[in-house]
Amino acid sequence: MGSSAATTNGVVDKGADFANYFCTYGFLYHQKEMLCDRVRMDAYYSAVFQNKHHFKGKVVLDVGTGSGILAIWSAQAGARKVYAVEATKMSEHARELVKANKLQDVVEVIEGSMEDIVLPEKVDVIISEWMGYFLLRESMFDSVLCARDRWLNPGGVMYPSHARMWMSPIKSGLVDQKIRDYDGAMADWSGFIKETEAYYGVDMSALTKPFDEEQKKYYLQTSLWNNLHPNQIIGTPVIIKEIDCLTVTVDDIRDVRASISSSITEENARLCGFGGWFDVHFRGSDKSPAQMEIELTTAPDEDLGTHWGQQVFLLHPPRNVQFGDELKINFLMTRSKENHRLMEVDLSCEIKRASGKPVPPLHKKFYIE
Amino acid sequence: MGSSAATTNGVVDKGADFANYFCTYGFLYHQKEMLCDRVRMDAYYSAVFQNKHHFKGKVVLDVGTGSGILAIWSAQAGARKVYAVEATKMSEHARELVKANKLQDVVEVIEGSMEDIVLPEKVDVIISEWMGYFLLRESMFDSVLCARDRWLNPGGVMYPSHARMWMSPIKSGLVDQKIRDYDGAMADWSGFIKETEAYYGVDMSALTKPFDEEQKKYYLQTSLWNNLHPNQIIGTPVIIKEIDCLTVTVDDIRDVRASISSSITEENARLCGFGGWFDVHFRGSDKSPAQMEIELTTAPDEDLGTHWGQQVFLLHPPRNVQFGDELKINFLMTRSKENHRLMEVDLSCEIKRASGKPVPPLHKKFYIE
Ligand SMILES: Nc1ncnc2c1ncn2[C@@H]1O[C@H](CSCC[C@H](N)C(=O)O)[C@@H](O)[C@H]1O
Ligand SMILES: Nc1ncnc2c1ncn2[C@@H]1O[C@H](CSCC[C@H](N)C(=O)O)[C@@H](O)[C@H]1O
Repeated sequence: MGSSAATTNGVVDKGADFANYFCTYGFLYHQKEMLCDRVRMDAYYSAVFQNKHHFKGKVVLDVGTGSGILAIWSAQAGARKVYAVEATKMSEHARELVKANKLQDVVEVIEGSMEDIVLPEKVDVIISEWMGYFLLRESMFDSVLCARDRWLNPGGVMYPSHARMWMSPIKSGLVDQKIRDYDGAMADWSGFIKETEAYYGVDMSALTKPFDEEQKKYYLQTSLWNNLHPNQIIGTPVIIKEIDCLTVTVDDIRDVRASISSSITEENARLCGFGGWFDVHFRGSDKSPAQMEIELTTAPDEDLGTHWGQQVFLLHPPRNVQFGDELKINFLMTRSKENHRLMEVDLSCEIKRASGKPVPPLHKKFYIE
Repeated sequence: MGSSAATTNGVVDKGADFANYFCTYGFLYHQKEMLCDRVRMDAYYSAVFQNKHHFKGKVVLDVGTGSGILAIWSAQAGARKVYAVEATKMSEHARELVKANKLQDVVEVIEGSMEDIVLPEKVDVIISEWMGYFLLRESMFDSVLCARDRWLNPGGVMYPSHARMWMSPIKSGLVDQKIRDYDGAMADWSGFIKETEAYYGVDMSALTKPFDEEQKKYYLQTSLWNNLHPNQIIGTPVIIKEIDCLTVTVDDIRDVRASISSSITEENARLCGFGGWFDVHFRGSDKSPAQMEIELTTAPDEDLGTHWGQQVFLLHPPRNVQFGDELKINFLMTRSKENHRLMEVDLSCEIKRASGKPVPPLHKKFYIE
């Protein structure tokens, strides 16, 4: 069995997908982490209860209901019927919770993959918390779009209705730590090479290059979860993708491509990499706007962290930049061939000095794992 | 997709098996961990080079060659031909390494699952490092037995030739730590229940029981990797399984059942659980014995730790025991239904006091994950 067993010709292997992705959602511990994210919870709670007109007497579909929380809120806000679809055994807990909150006449929990199940009717609202790190990791939004195209009534609304991806130049001590870790791993490796030759008569040095690549990828090219402080942002944050959840297609989000510029806003700063985050909005639709628009942002904030944090892409070595320097960034995010729920980022950056002095351009490859 | 996607009717889903099991072996980092285990390396090295008569001019099969190390040693010891089978892309590195050590005329690296591939001839020796935690975790030995039944010549030898599982009563501070962790998680949960009711109007208390079960399983019923110190052993170690690698069948090892007794060897000891480990031996066969018998043991040792460590099964709450107390243990290890490479242990224990005072019997369920 080759290492590509997880996907064959772009067709997702369901066993591998369950082992890699769904399995963690089967734990209450993991659901609780999301349920304890106050920023996330407050946003969805306000979105539902301050826009009851979208729910009163309506049919709602909750894609990936997990513990059932969004389905329960939808019912409490007055929905006539809520279909709560969940792929994992968490569905059993959701069903219990619905019952304990006396909503079993409104909320119907369905265990199954959104792509596979059949609803008895079309719906007026699709609510879902589908966002992964840097918005699109996990590719769960595909399942929401599939649900929309099959089950949303014309004139129906999406919760959330809009999403955006953001990026910004940052400074961060993480880069020094990761470079140290990588150097340590390579120093350790050269000791290993010597010992294996001396004690066991085998020359392992042919593996030095692939080991180096593996460790570089692990320490320096894999994006990191981090809760950035706003003062780590050293340039203007830029939008790299805007999504209208009512009209976007999977083809529109499979690759994310952006050519952007950001200007450095700090004197004598150290450009250590880039931070990426997202926000989503609950605005209803043109035909049926929200009474109260709600925003859920995962931008760096002094007080309000989310479980998503930000994704950090490190630049090694860091570069010195000056106030007014202009970064011209080409960004391309694609899905990993081996696992469509993980991402690869190709990032190139030209630094246009305010001083005019030329700087060699950067080109880096990253993995969102 | 239900949480049982990983196995359907006992048939292994290859995609899930790759995602769960093989994928880690694709990393040089992981192979290096094994290559840096001096106890392991010394044992196999001595087994091969002090028994060259088993290799000189012979045909060898290395089941799961990883980096290729055992295949290379077999060739260096004089094998005429070595087939080195590896399921993951590590096979490419093994091939490079073989070449760099100028053994490409002897060692043939074959990428594929042992169960699927076809060799051009039968072999005289099967060498393999198939041992998982507590010997049988990973169930890789199945693949070795499959190879033996298909490819080993009559009169051929197995490296290793024998294996044993051991168990012993232990004391350990881990139990207090894990009980604390579990208590902390439950205290946290009750805060969560209150807040979710207060802020978000949902009564989550129906999930308290399943959350409690999940956390108990995680903190108290999942066996732990640990490098025990010999002085943590408070009773006589007992063999719970003996395996002759030449004759054993998969049916013989699918369940491991033992009724054993161990006597407490320490005054006023605290029985905190049980430690489990294994050893394997390289003795050749009756017809073709080793010139030098080699043992590889993973028993607790003051100096010589292995990457296998020992598996610790915690007893909560711990029990006080006295010198001479007799533990009558019924042990049953089966494979997990969801993943045949993981194990479940059912352990019951009666304590026969030297003083004659009766003690209620224990019965615990554990998971080797
Ligand atoms: N295609 C699909 N079909 C059904 N459920 C899915 C799915 N893709 C993801 N999920 C489920 O969607 C959930 C996303 S996490 C969000 C859980 C819950 N709605 C909350 O807001 O707290 C997980 O439980 C996951 O198992
Ligand atoms: N059924 C099977 N077919 C082929 N390779 C297998 C296999 N089951 C396990 N393996 C491989 O066996 C290796 C076990 S680890 C041991 C590696 C090497 N022999 C050493 O001693 O250092 C892993 O690389 C794993 O990918």
